[in-house]
Amino acid sequence: MATPWQRPKILAFDIFGTVVDWHGSIVREVEALGLLDGPGCALTPADFARAWRAGYRPAMARVMSGELGWTRIDDLHRMILDELLDQYHLALDEPGRRQLNLAWHRLAPWPDSVEGLSRLKQRHVICTLSNGNLGLLADMAKLGGLPWDLILSAEVFRAYKPHPDTYLGVAEVFEVDPSEVMLVAAHQDDLDAARGCGLKTAYIERPHEFGADAPKSVEGSSANDLHASSLTDLARALQC
Amino acid sequence: MATPWQRPKILAFDIFGTVVDWHGSIVREVEALGLLDGPGCALTPADFARAWRAGYRPAMARVMSGELGWTRIDDLHRMILDELLDQYHLALDEPGRRQLNLAWHRLAPWPDSVEGLSRLKQRHVICTLSNGNLGLLADMAKLGGLPWDLILSAEVFRAYKPHPDTYLGVAEVFEVDPSEVMLVAAHQDDLDAARGCGLKTAYIERPHEFGADAPKSVEGSSANDLHASSLTDLARALQC
Repeated sequence: MATPWQRPKILAFDIFGTVVDWHGSIVREVEALGLLDGPGCALTPADFARAWRAGYRPAMARVMSGELGWTRIDDLHRMILDELLDQYHLALDEPGRRQLNLAWHRLAPWPDSVEGLSRLKQRHVICTLSNGNLGLLADMAKLGGLPWDLILSAEVFRAYKPHPDTYLGVAEVFEVDPSEVMLVAAHQDDLDAARGCGLKTAYIERPHEFGADAPKSVEGSSANDLHASSLTDLARALQC
Repeated sequence: MATPWQRPKILAFDIFGTVVDWHGSIVREVEALGLLDGPGCALTPADFARAWRAGYRPAMARVMSGELGWTRIDDLHRMILDELLDQYHLALDEPGRRQLNLAWHRLAPWPDSVEGLSRLKQRHVICTLSNGNLGLLADMAKLGGLPWDLILSAEVFRAYKPHPDTYLGVAEVFEVDPSEVMLVAAHQDDLDAARGCGLKTAYIERPHEFGADAPKSVEGSSANDLHASSLTDLARALQC
């Protein structure tokens, strides 16, 4: 006999790529800065954004292996930025680097995010579960109008996703069973790790997460509890 | 030469008594439950609320001394409740105790709190700095419509106020100097500890924090940067 569907109490959202468009936002900031406008620069803003983001997982792995002590994403983003500028011989002074690094605090929501979250909030507790640090997530929410009930971060749990302490940490904070939490993400590996901890999962299609010139597969796994094309589509599926 | 006034970037708010009326809220829950209606019960709901709250500091002191491991306020509130019920021979079953203990998640804002915070939010980042746990503060914000930019708690810093890690933790989360953070509280000892860590301070008058039958002095110290009669009065003082 199938278990009857239980509405999850808590919806925990991945942020980069799922709720906000990191690629488009970084491209706009790099273009506005004219960073790549010099003669002979082979890198496009779209490539630059992808290269910056690509450094993120190896940097977190260095933290989780213990090679680096606990380090916030802000500082990891800055390490990767410095390496990129060096590698491509791009000139940017210290205030410019600091300012560009804060671009990750200013990532714009996808067009459906604010409406979708506002509707989902009416019948659920909505929180972040992001590897971004608390200050970054608070700035982003304030600028973008993201109506979180609670901002949770790797910084609270001192572990980066996909470490189980992050997924189980959400359930502990709200004193609910892991099965009462649903992770909402555009990345199947994040959802698989959450399911491994007993959470429910919802896959969100973001085909242009890496740019319109680099579409990604948005098939998702049949193991997910829900599959939606946007956060408004998720609200529809959850009758919000 | 006097230093020119610098608007603090971050306003961090004490919660119990400063933003929400714990006494009135607990009294209403105890009355609705009829907990003290039995014959011969000498305790009034107002006394019960004060006795419950009075157990809070000694319980936190047991955590901070290391006698108890890290314990959330939810669990401390429950320990104190069980002791009180025992002491006064009051009957309440396990689901009733669990439900009453959650009264602290449902504390009502003072009448000026939502308007004051909404105005202050327009020119400041507003966050909580409370000994309450994250789940409690999120529930309270959702029910009461408290528009926080970020919910910070002793649970994030694994230390209870007045430990310096809590006050300095706010500055670290936002990567600002402690002098760019202002603690807003109705308790002079909290403000004194914050000032000792380099924060600015604003005293809020809450003469009936312990009930209309037990008014408290709201003089505050002249060492505070601001003194206001409510959160809307603070918004006025900060030109918000």
